[in-house]
Amino acid sequence: MQIDEIALKPDLIALLGEKKCCFSLEDRWTYSFDASKERGVPDAVVFPSCSRDVCAIMGYAHGNKIPVVPRGAGSGLTGGAVPLNGGIVMVLERMNRILELDTKNLCAVVETGVITADLQTAAARENLFYPPDPASQAFSTIGGNIAENAGGMRGAKYGVTKQYVLGLEVVLPNGDLVTLGSKCIKDVVGYSMTELFVGSEGTFGIITKAILKLVTRPETVKTLAICFSSIQDAGGAVPLLLKSGVVPCTLEFIDAACLQAVLARGIGDELEQQIHGDTKAMLLIEVDGSAHEVERDAAMVLKICKESGMLSCRLARDPDERERLWQVRRSIHGALMGLCPQWLEEDISVPPASIPMMLDKLQRLAGAKNLRILCFGHYADGNIHLSVSEADAPLTPQQALVVKKEIFSETVKLGGRIAAEHGIGSVKKEYLGFNLDEPTLNLAMGVKKMLDPRGILNPGKIFPQQIWDKGYGSD
Amino acid sequence: MQIDEIALKPDLIALLGEKKCCFSLEDRWTYSFDASKERGVPDAVVFPSCSRDVCAIMGYAHGNKIPVVPRGAGSGLTGGAVPLNGGIVMVLERMNRILELDTKNLCAVVETGVITADLQTAAARENLFYPPDPASQAFSTIGGNIAENAGGMRGAKYGVTKQYVLGLEVVLPNGDLVTLGSKCIKDVVGYSMTELFVGSEGTFGIITKAILKLVTRPETVKTLAICFSSIQDAGGAVPLLLKSGVVPCTLEFIDAACLQAVLARGIGDELEQQIHGDTKAMLLIEVDGSAHEVERDAAMVLKICKESGMLSCRLARDPDERERLWQVRRSIHGALMGLCPQWLEEDISVPPASIPMMLDKLQRLAGAKNLRILCFGHYADGNIHLSVSEADAPLTPQQALVVKKEIFSETVKLGGRIAAEHGIGSVKKEYLGFNLDEPTLNLAMGVKKMLDPRGILNPGKIFPQQIWDKGYGSD
Repeated sequence: MQIDEIALKPDLIALLGEKKCCFSLEDRWTYSFDASKERGVPDAVVFPSCSRDVCAIMGYAHGNKIPVVPRGAGSGLTGGAVPLNGGIVMVLERMNRILELDTKNLCAVVETGVITADLQTAAARENLFYPPDPASQAFSTIGGNIAENAGGMRGAKYGVTKQYVLGLEVVLPNGDLVTLGSKCIKDVVGYSMTELFVGSEGTFGIITKAILKLVTRPETVKTLAICFSSIQDAGGAVPLLLKSGVVPCTLEFIDAACLQAVLARGIGDELEQQIHGDTKAMLLIEVDGSAHEVERDAAMVLKICKESGMLSCRLARDPDERERLWQVRRSIHGALMGLCPQWLEEDISVPPASIPMMLDKLQRLAGAKNLRILCFGHYADGNIHLSVSEADAPLTPQQALVVKKEIFSETVKLGGRIAAEHGIGSVKKEYLGFNLDEPTLNLAMGVKKMLDPRGILNPGKIFPQQIWDKGYGSD
Repeated sequence: MQIDEIALKPDLIALLGEKKCCFSLEDRWTYSFDASKERGVPDAVVFPSCSRDVCAIMGYAHGNKIPVVPRGAGSGLTGGAVPLNGGIVMVLERMNRILELDTKNLCAVVETGVITADLQTAAARENLFYPPDPASQAFSTIGGNIAENAGGMRGAKYGVTKQYVLGLEVVLPNGDLVTLGSKCIKDVVGYSMTELFVGSEGTFGIITKAILKLVTRPETVKTLAICFSSIQDAGGAVPLLLKSGVVPCTLEFIDAACLQAVLARGIGDELEQQIHGDTKAMLLIEVDGSAHEVERDAAMVLKICKESGMLSCRLARDPDERERLWQVRRSIHGALMGLCPQWLEEDISVPPASIPMMLDKLQRLAGAKNLRILCFGHYADGNIHLSVSEADAPLTPQQALVVKKEIFSETVKLGGRIAAEHGIGSVKKEYLGFNLDEPTLNLAMGVKKMLDPRGILNPGKIFPQQIWDKGYGSD
C-alpha cells in the first residue's frame, strides 16, 4: 500500500496541530527501529497528548486504511514498535501522567506513557510497591509493558505484568474508545476483555490508560549468590526449594559460560575470590518479606542448596554487597558483547523443572555444531535467555535460522514456549507454528480480524505471513 | 427455533452411543435448572466422556444450528447452565479425571468435570494447595469455576480462579479443538487466549481440560472473630490492615442484620456469650503462613482493630473453635431462610475502601423503602452479598426489578460492578449497560459472534436482548 504523503501531512496537522506531528526524514528515521534488528521508516510520527487525540488518529487511519504502530519507549526486543509497512508511528510518551495513587484501594491509575520506574518511585513514596521489573524499567513505559506482558526478575514471587492490570482504557482500531475492568478486585462483568489486551503487542488496540494493582512494600530483602559445580546440582535444588514453601522473590541462574565471560572481563578481586574455582553454575536468590521471614527463608535456601551439593554461598551483608552480587548478573550483557559483536539472542520458556534438561540439550547442540551457547535467566519461571554464536564469530543469517529452529524444536519437545517475556513481534512470527496449531492460529486471527477488520494496527506482527494473508488477503 | 426431536435422538445416539444420551422428559426436567430461579427444558441431555465426544457434539450442533448449554454441577446462581432456548445440555461430569499432579512444576492437569474439592484433596495429599474456594466447592466443578471465574473466601490473599489457570483445552462452537497456554509460567505466544475463556460463562467454547497452578500449603492458620459497634468502625480497620502489610487469607464481614438473624436462630451459648452485646458488625479474619508469620499477623490484626474501636475479639484456640467461629458465617443462609422464604439476592463489587459507603447507601435505601437489606461478604475484595425482602414478605417481581436497579445504580456511582463472582448469566444480562457502554458491549458481541457465528453456544446469556438481536438478528 502506498500512502499519499501529501495528504497525510495536512490531515494529521488538521487533526492534532503541528506540535504533535513530525514528518522530516530525520524524525522519521528516529522512529524506524526498536531494540531489535528490525527496521522500517514511517511516513509520519505523531505524539498524542490525550485519549481524544488517539481516537482521532485511529478514526482517520481506519477510514484511510493507513497502518498505525503504537510505541512506548521503543525498548522492545522483537520489533513490536517498528513500522515495517510505513504509516504512522504513534508515540505515547506525552501521555505520561500518574492520574491517581489510590492508597486506600492499593492501585494506581496511569496514562500508559508513564515510565515503569517512575510509577515504582511514586508507589514507594506511599510505601507501596509495583512489582513488575523488566530489565528496561528505567526507560520502558507501562503501555509497552502491558502490550508485551513484560516479566522481570521478581516474577518468581510476584508474577508478570498481567497479574497487575485491573482495568484498561483502549482505543480500538476503528477509533472507538472502550473502558475495560475497574478498581474492583472481583469483576466478572462482560468477559475477560482487560486480559485479552494484555500481551496483544499493540495489534488489538492502543492502550491509553491503565488501572494497576499495587501491593505493600516488603520490609526487607536478603540476597544469596550460590555456586554449584554443575547446572544439574543447581537444578536439583530448585524444585526442593519451591516445594519447601519458600517463595523466593528472584531466582536467577547463570551458566558456566556466562560466568566465565563475566569473570574474564573482571568483576573485582573481592567478589572474584568469593566465587568458588570449580563453579559451573550460579543461582542468585533473593527472599523478601519481614525480617523474620527473610531470615528463615534464607536459612532454608542455604540448607537446601547445601543438601544439593553447593560449592559455596555468599550472603550479602549490606546493600553494597547486594549491589556487587547483582553486578555479576548485570555484567553478562557487556561481557558477551566483549566476546562477540553480534549474538543470536533468544527468550524461551519451559516448565521450570525442565530447565536442566533444556540446558543440557543446548550444550549438546553447541557441541554438535561447534557453537557457543550461553544461558542465564529466571529459573523459577522456567525462562531462559540464551545467546548463540560460532566459536569465534557471529552466526550468518542462514545459520541463525537453522539454529533458531533447532532451539525452538527442542523447547517444544519439553512442553516449552518460543517466547516468554519479550513478545513475538515480527522477529518470531514465522515460528508461531512451533507452539500453536492451525485451529489455534485461526482463532487468534479471528479475534485480530474482528477487532481490526482493515488490518491497520501494527501490521506484520505476531502472525506468520501465510496466516495473515489467509485472514486479510495478500493485497 | 424448533428442533426436530425425531432427528436429534438418532443423530446424537449415532454420534455418542445410547449410554451417553438422555431424552426422557424426567431426565430433561432434571437438567432444566441450576441454583438460580431460571428454568428451561432441553431437548436432549448428553454426557460426553472425552474431548472427541465434545467435538462431535459441537460439530453436529453447529451444522444444524442447535443450541448447546454446557453444565458442570449446575450450582451456578445466575442461570448459566439453564437451557433457556432448549437444545442440548452437555453435562461434563463424566470427564472427571485428574490427569496429572505435577509436583515438580506445581501444577495439575485435569478434565474439567473434576469437582473442585476433589482437586483440593488430591493436591493436599502432595502437600500442595489449590486456593480458589467458592462456597460450592464440595460439588461444583473446575469447569464451572473457570467458566464463572469463581471466587471464594480466600480471595483476599489468593485471588480468584483466573489467577490459577495456566492453560486450557477448549472445543470451539464449530467443533474445532484448541489448546491454549501451557505449563510454562511465562508464556507470551499468541495472545492471552487462555484468559479470554476464563469467565466466559460457557458462551465462547466448551472447556474440556485445564492446567491449574498449585501453591505450597500454608503451615498453619489463625482465625479471629472481631466485633464492632458499627460497620464504619470495622470499615476503618480494613484499609489500615491492608496497608500494614498483613495480607489476610480471608477477611469476611457480617452486618448487624445478618448477625441478628444468626443469633435469633441460635448458635450455642458459648459462642453467643463471646459476641459483645453492642455488636453491629463482625469481621472474620484468617491469617495463614508459617507459625511465626501467623502469630505476628494475628497480633497486628488485633492491634489495628483495637485502634479502630473494636468491642471484642475472639481468637480461635483450636480447630474446633475455629469451626464454631466459621459457623456464624455459615449459618447466615439458613438464618435468612428462616426469616423469609424468598430473598432477592445480589452479588456486587465495589473498590474495597468504598464498602462502608455502599453499606450506608443500602441501609438508607432500606429505610426509604421499608425493606430489609442484609449484607455479608468478602471485605478485602470489595465483594458484597446482599439479601433483600420487604419488612415481612418477599419482594414482588416488580419490586425486585426496581430495587435491583437502585442497588446497581448506587454500586456504579461508587465505581463498582454489578457482578463480582457469580457471573451475569441470564439473570443480570439486561443490566449489563450499568457497567458497559455501547462500544464495550459491541466489542464483547464482536468476540462472541466471531467465535460463535451461529449463536448456538449458551444463547440467552450475558448479552442484553437488544445487543443480541443487533448481533445475530432476531430470528
